[in-house]
Amino acid sequence: MAIKAPCSLLMLLGIVFLASICVSSRSDQDQENPFIFNSNRFQTLFENENGHIRLLQRFDKRSKIFENLQNYRLLEYHSKPHTLFLPQHNDADFILVVVSGKAILTVLNPNNRNSFNLERGDTIKLPAGTLGYLANRDDNKDLRVLDLAIPVNRPGQFQSFSLSESENQQSFLSGFSKNILEAAFNSNYEEIERVLIEENEQEPQHRRGLRKDERRQQSQEANVIVKVSREQIEELSKNAKSSSRRSESSESEPINLRNQKPIYSNKFGNFFEITPEKNPQLKDLDILVNYAEIREGSLLLPHFNSRATVIVAVEEGKGEFELVGQRNENQQEQREYEEDEQQQERSQQVQRYRARLSPGDVYVIPAGHPIVVTASSDLSLLGFGINAENNQRNFLAGEEDNVISQIERPVKEVAFPGSAQDVESLLKNQRQSYFANAQPQQREREEGRSQRQREPISSILGAF
Amino acid sequence: MAIKAPCSLLMLLGIVFLASICVSSRSDQDQENPFIFNSNRFQTLFENENGHIRLLQRFDKRSKIFENLQNYRLLEYHSKPHTLFLPQHNDADFILVVVSGKAILTVLNPNNRNSFNLERGDTIKLPAGTLGYLANRDDNKDLRVLDLAIPVNRPGQFQSFSLSESENQQSFLSGFSKNILEAAFNSNYEEIERVLIEENEQEPQHRRGLRKDERRQQSQEANVIVKVSREQIEELSKNAKSSSRRSESSESEPINLRNQKPIYSNKFGNFFEITPEKNPQLKDLDILVNYAEIREGSLLLPHFNSRATVIVAVEEGKGEFELVGQRNENQQEQREYEEDEQQQERSQQVQRYRARLSPGDVYVIPAGHPIVVTASSDLSLLGFGINAENNQRNFLAGEEDNVISQIERPVKEVAFPGSAQDVESLLKNQRQSYFANAQPQQREREEGRSQRQREPISSILGAF
Amino acid sequence: MAIKAPCSLLMLLGIVFLASICVSSRSDQDQENPFIFNSNRFQTLFENENGHIRLLQRFDKRSKIFENLQNYRLLEYHSKPHTLFLPQHNDADFILVVVSGKAILTVLNPNNRNSFNLERGDTIKLPAGTLGYLANRDDNKDLRVLDLAIPVNRPGQFQSFSLSESENQQSFLSGFSKNILEAAFNSNYEEIERVLIEENEQEPQHRRGLRKDERRQQSQEANVIVKVSREQIEELSKNAKSSSRRSESSESEPINLRNQKPIYSNKFGNFFEITPEKNPQLKDLDILVNYAEIREGSLLLPHFNSRATVIVAVEEGKGEFELVGQRNENQQEQREYEEDEQQQERSQQVQRYRARLSPGDVYVIPAGHPIVVTASSDLSLLGFGINAENNQRNFLAGEEDNVISQIERPVKEVAFPGSAQDVESLLKNQRQSYFANAQPQQREREEGRSQRQREPISSILGAF
Repeated sequence: MAIKAPCSLLMLLGIVFLASICVSSRSDQDQENPFIFNSNRFQTLFENENGHIRLLQRFDKRSKIFENLQNYRLLEYHSKPHTLFLPQHNDADFILVVVSGKAILTVLNPNNRNSFNLERGDTIKLPAGTLGYLANRDDNKDLRVLDLAIPVNRPGQFQSFSLSESENQQSFLSGFSKNILEAAFNSNYEEIERVLIEENEQEPQHRRGLRKDERRQQSQEANVIVKVSREQIEELSKNAKSSSRRSESSESEPINLRNQKPIYSNKFGNFFEITPEKNPQLKDLDILVNYAEIREGSLLLPHFNSRATVIVAVEEGKGEFELVGQRNENQQEQREYEEDEQQQERSQQVQRYRARLSPGDVYVIPAGHPIVVTASSDLSLLGFGINAENNQRNFLAGEEDNVISQIERPVKEVAFPGSAQDVESLLKNQRQSYFANAQPQQREREEGRSQRQREPISSILGAF
Repeated sequence: MAIKAPCSLLMLLGIVFLASICVSSRSDQDQENPFIFNSNRFQTLFENENGHIRLLQRFDKRSKIFENLQNYRLLEYHSKPHTLFLPQHNDADFILVVVSGKAILTVLNPNNRNSFNLERGDTIKLPAGTLGYLANRDDNKDLRVLDLAIPVNRPGQFQSFSLSESENQQSFLSGFSKNILEAAFNSNYEEIERVLIEENEQEPQHRRGLRKDERRQQSQEANVIVKVSREQIEELSKNAKSSSRRSESSESEPINLRNQKPIYSNKFGNFFEITPEKNPQLKDLDILVNYAEIREGSLLLPHFNSRATVIVAVEEGKGEFELVGQRNENQQEQREYEEDEQQQERSQQVQRYRARLSPGDVYVIPAGHPIVVTASSDLSLLGFGINAENNQRNFLAGEEDNVISQIERPVKEVAFPGSAQDVESLLKNQRQSYFANAQPQQREREEGRSQRQREPISSILGAF
Repeated sequence: MAIKAPCSLLMLLGIVFLASICVSSRSDQDQENPFIFNSNRFQTLFENENGHIRLLQRFDKRSKIFENLQNYRLLEYHSKPHTLFLPQHNDADFILVVVSGKAILTVLNPNNRNSFNLERGDTIKLPAGTLGYLANRDDNKDLRVLDLAIPVNRPGQFQSFSLSESENQQSFLSGFSKNILEAAFNSNYEEIERVLIEENEQEPQHRRGLRKDERRQQSQEANVIVKVSREQIEELSKNAKSSSRRSESSESEPINLRNQKPIYSNKFGNFFEITPEKNPQLKDLDILVNYAEIREGSLLLPHFNSRATVIVAVEEGKGEFELVGQRNENQQEQREYEEDEQQQERSQQVQRYRARLSPGDVYVIPAGHPIVVTASSDLSLLGFGINAENNQRNFLAGEEDNVISQIERPVKEVAFPGSAQDVESLLKNQRQSYFANAQPQQREREEGRSQRQREPISSILGAF
């Protein structure tokens, strides 16, 4: 009988284990568009009156189709004017882009220090293990920064090591024992504690001297993101360099996304891009960064990335995307234990994935997947591309860079129901390239507005 | 009691889950030679009267020993004369080798197009996301192509995105909604549908006009692989370039395996190889491609690859391989939950893996594993090598490139039961290098044929 | 009823499976400092009177926090004077460092041979699949070698292929069938067996001739590590080259760690390092090798590696390390099935990990984690760094390379409880750099020895 109790316990554990699998797969079915991450999928890591840090859900935990994004995380940093994010380092590489506001980023090395004045669009790599701090140097405007984090120790997980003691985070210095700290700093522990490490609350009353209130006040401030004075900001600004205006950036200086010549531009929108081929900072991480502005009522024409998977964050505005995938893409997770894993590769049913976009939303465009983005108000999109080297953007409509128009006539003849001539004449209807009017007037006049009511039933309304 | 029902259900799920594990491991035991993939391990992805596409089982699903081959897939394409594989792109890089017949491969870029006349032995990389099509340009001969696919989105899985609508595959254009297509092409939807997207069967009769029968006919043809006329082939041939005769190939042009100088050659066989060191197309994928011809009654002398794992497909002929591994190699899968995972590394029992080879069979030679291949009729082998950079082929017999003969005399003395002199004299008996007679006359004369009947009992007859 | 029996069996399997999970996670909780691997975590792969080979437990099997170390293994080789490790090759790259004694390493290529005289500190890469052998050329001293192994076929697992038949290991030549060997060596099998392959015990008595006793004697010796005569050693030494004295080493020659100029040096210790940036052998593997000597009573000042994770083996002496991590680091394993995986990233509690160090112990310093090492007797440490390119060592105390002293004054003001002036004055107390006195006299005089008895309670005494 003695063996029965642990046996039941184990059985129970087994059930809990199996139940947890069932539950998680059911909750995945609820959300049938895995490509959209609404802003509520960010989790707040830290928040106080001076700002916050939020971390997006792991891509690979959302869906198995993002297994290759396992080691990429998206972070959002937000802070009030005249604040400072205290010194810390992380076990992850960061690609940092200023979304709005003005900042001073200071990067510390063993024997020098670099400070950079950053403004909207500035992009810089902060290598793993770099001790640094970030100030909002603007008098009025909030600072918003988006970071792509690429952990070095554990796939998809990273840690921050803070030099400053606060309510939320202990100083990593306090991790060393007293005698080690005394030997390291060649000082007695009381002095080290008083100067470098915040006193904890259990400390006996008599040790607190005249500086106690002072320290208390700082303690409330010393909360990862702290207020600083205008004078302190000015002092930090003194040696700060601004981002390079040249298109080839250096190994460590920021480069501004929006100061580049746009790679696609017309009256409906602009598209800026920094690629690893041209930027040494992005080369070893094999990342591209791009920035698209789509004017209200316009669309980014249907296209696909040849090899990059792009994580896009909505900065401003509203709109919608349509992404074309395979029908089974989202259902493959259920089948992972099945023997005949290859069956899934047979059915080639096309599936439309749609979602409305608002500021703070994130979506993922896997390599090869055709996508269109429409703007119902001026829309700004910041994209981080993974596996970026030699990526090519193939457009499927528009006058330039349209791969369909490159198809030879005999192939057009057999590949499409219309004749080659029909195809070519149809392709010429769109005189714009890259960006176009989402409600073209010509069509409006000819046909009226009736048809825009017709909605395909089979589409998946991801974010509605 | 309410809790009992779901509990039983979960228990059942648990049992099914555990049972599926049991079943899969038992079926693996049935087939004790994991290195051979008989031709029936290809699965047909598509087939019509004009040709077919077949995909080999995932290496890592066959055996855990191929975990590092997770992201490599082998594809076979076969088509009749005067046919065209319609435009599509894939989320995988392809290394494409023409096994027999003559082809025109057309590769589309946003602002140009490249066409290549391919023939037997031509090897070309088709980067992920490249829209392209492939014609059989021969009047009589079938076209056969082998592809190594390296997926970019999901490990071991890739998807095809077809531009043409067919019974088997929807056009990815049909994935976009009507109003998006209208805006993108600046045309009304009926026109777009008529010209670019095949009508579906539910479409009302009255919309079909004069072109209906025409389109129907095309619909039957428009089936991924379609018939084309001799005139259409000729038009496609016009601008097609042929493969480079130089040994250093360019970034994008095909290179012919068999036009190279063979790296090993004698009257018993030839061995051709393209390495990533010399070929920019193969460099970033770290792939080598080789081609061996072994004459009837000959063998490729025992050797091992220092760091490359080679996936070999039998093109023509019959033969046999013997591969030397460790006894436990195939049984490690059962032990994965065991704590003492290192025990397996203690027993160093050698295991022979043998299999007969026929056209269409595939075998895998892991790095470091010694192998011999014998030909019972003229045998042609096409190999794709993974982890290819700085790979070295070490021969264990033969006059040249024989690592055993490089061993110093004092070491020969202690490493082998015979004296150093005996070893050296034995090694000199084989005057050939790389390829040799599988039934050498000298031995025949001295000993007769009796000994070839003796068969070791412990060998595993993988494919018999 | 027929279905009941297998059902119970499966249930039993399920329980065993679940039990094994429970047991393994419980045993992990027993050992709460995952960063230390005491010398008993080496497993003996082979041992005879001439020496032994030991393999450290897999890092990733010890703790999930070492998932990225999955494909790195640590090996120790030990042999008596005048012995030879017989020819073999492995399906792993090796970085080999001589810890003590003198060796001759011979590396065989298809058409040449390289021999190297190695001594303490010599470091050389032995690429995967390289046939080689290693002699202890010293008359008196044992040879000790540490190897970092990076498997090429299976993550974390590698195999040795021995050319020589012994009790412990079969010759891989014996894996081929008789007729294959006869054709390969163009000789009859009896001759091949007599000269290259040790006879097995089942062999009939009558075949053993005059050489039987001779061979028997060799058979006992031919046991992976065998005795060789002084004359044989001398013959092997003839063509052996010594390690390069230049700091830039060649593609294949050894480089001596301790002949380099130390990167940090004072009277308390020395630190030598070979980085992938300067050494072509280490470049493609992205490995650094370093060697630290800490004098008795000294410490290596607190620092962290920006991006490298370093595996450190204690060569000689005794000491202790303190490593600062996050509180939850060790407990994350239990939570892997939980939905809210991000919770763990919120709590930023600092955790001290301490362990005493003795010769043969190994510890791991993940990137970004601050560490201090103290020596209670002269301590020698050999480190292999993974992900080494562009790694930067940031010191947290000491005069030079101290990142804290790079923090600007206004930030010092808000980041620490003391004023900026207090911080700067405190940092100046430590006049040493990199290495310092672990019991500084100044403090001793002022405060006596009482405080060293105070021990923090919350620390985890990993190895005690």
